[in-house]
Amino acid sequence: MTGRSLESPALKPDRAIEFWFEFGSNYSYLSVMRIEALARQHGVDVVWKPFLLGPIFRALGMETSPFVLQKEKGAYVWRDMVRQCRKYGLRWTQPTTFPRDSVLATRVALLGAGQPWIGEFSRKVMELNFVLDEDIRQSHRIAELLAAMNLPASELIDWAQAEPNKVRLRDQTEQARTRGLFGAPTFFVGGEMFWGDDRLDDALSFTSGPRELQTEQPAADHHRE
Amino acid sequence: MTGRSLESPALKPDRAIEFWFEFGSNYSYLSVMRIEALARQHGVDVVWKPFLLGPIFRALGMETSPFVLQKEKGAYVWRDMVRQCRKYGLRWTQPTTFPRDSVLATRVALLGAGQPWIGEFSRKVMELNFVLDEDIRQSHRIAELLAAMNLPASELIDWAQAEPNKVRLRDQTEQARTRGLFGAPTFFVGGEMFWGDDRLDDALSFTSGPRELQTEQPAADHHRE
Repeated sequence: MTGRSLESPALKPDRAIEFWFEFGSNYSYLSVMRIEALARQHGVDVVWKPFLLGPIFRALGMETSPFVLQKEKGAYVWRDMVRQCRKYGLRWTQPTTFPRDSVLATRVALLGAGQPWIGEFSRKVMELNFVLDEDIRQSHRIAELLAAMNLPASELIDWAQAEPNKVRLRDQTEQARTRGLFGAPTFFVGGEMFWGDDRLDDALSFTSGPRELQTEQPAADHHRE
Repeated sequence: MTGRSLESPALKPDRAIEFWFEFGSNYSYLSVMRIEALARQHGVDVVWKPFLLGPIFRALGMETSPFVLQKEKGAYVWRDMVRQCRKYGLRWTQPTTFPRDSVLATRVALLGAGQPWIGEFSRKVMELNFVLDEDIRQSHRIAELLAAMNLPASELIDWAQAEPNKVRLRDQTEQARTRGLFGAPTFFVGGEMFWGDDRLDDALSFTSGPRELQTEQPAADHHRE
């Protein structure tokens, strides 16, 4: 990352990161909690793209999360989450229901996607799920979060559940599918897709221009120091 | 990582990393090329555990690699490999056959697992597959690699293909399955499992003791700086 500050503006094609996330997804939790502070350090705007993984998984022939379908991977993932959360300084409770139905929260997030409150709202919903281990389907809990942020809770919930917004969420999820998303979180910088919380740093660095993809191939015997 | 050198020996329960890898696996390629130099920096021994992913995938109900079974993920993985290899300074050619049959190379690696030549041999096989895009089943090519390393090539290939060594590889792969491996590379430090090249650094740090798992939970509002 060092040295990038000397690059000419022409090498910075895109100073925004598209952030596709799902409130039921544990690895999305890590990114939702981290992305705003990291993006600020990089001087990058976050374009929030809440969507539903369920229809994506079903389109790929899976009835639910691969962490549920593959017991071995599932067992590992919960251990990995403990370690990742400690590494990042995040609280963590393994949810007793997984994955949780996130339709309502996602519809509200869709309304907030261009608003200044989207980051805080998304973190609070994630904490309901992955810290407090609460059902995020409950409209009174979502309303409480919104009210605590001095937002018009009942109006927002009504708009979120109105038909036009339901259609918007279906469209957004369909857009995710047609763009080749198969999991969450997923980041786009320009046309470049990055999958997983593990690629958040790489995606943010990529906003300074895809220089590492234009460098020469390293020498043949690079690994024999 | 800095500061760890001041820890008392009592806090270093295990200075070895078990490295489970498969020559047909592209993410194993990244770790095979990187692990010896990184482990040296950490003062950690590498215990090489070559095994076959095919039987593991079949036990999980998959006929081949998930990167083949899931087209969307597969397409992404090849792009991800380009970026990861540039990041790590590794050469990369997307193999025209994937995943390649690695049985012969793995049997030879099993013979070398406790020998000083295992690292170089493994890197050379990986370069055949992921740089030169060659079939790693060919015994004359594996023999050439061994001979170039001043090793008794034909004897090693004969021993590799003899029944006792075949049984050893079946046992090693079965051990992988019973320990809950579902992909490669996988690392163990003590009883702690780490999956994927993305966790190599975390696994190496863990050899200094699982301190990060013993720290207090962070405060509730850590993310609002």
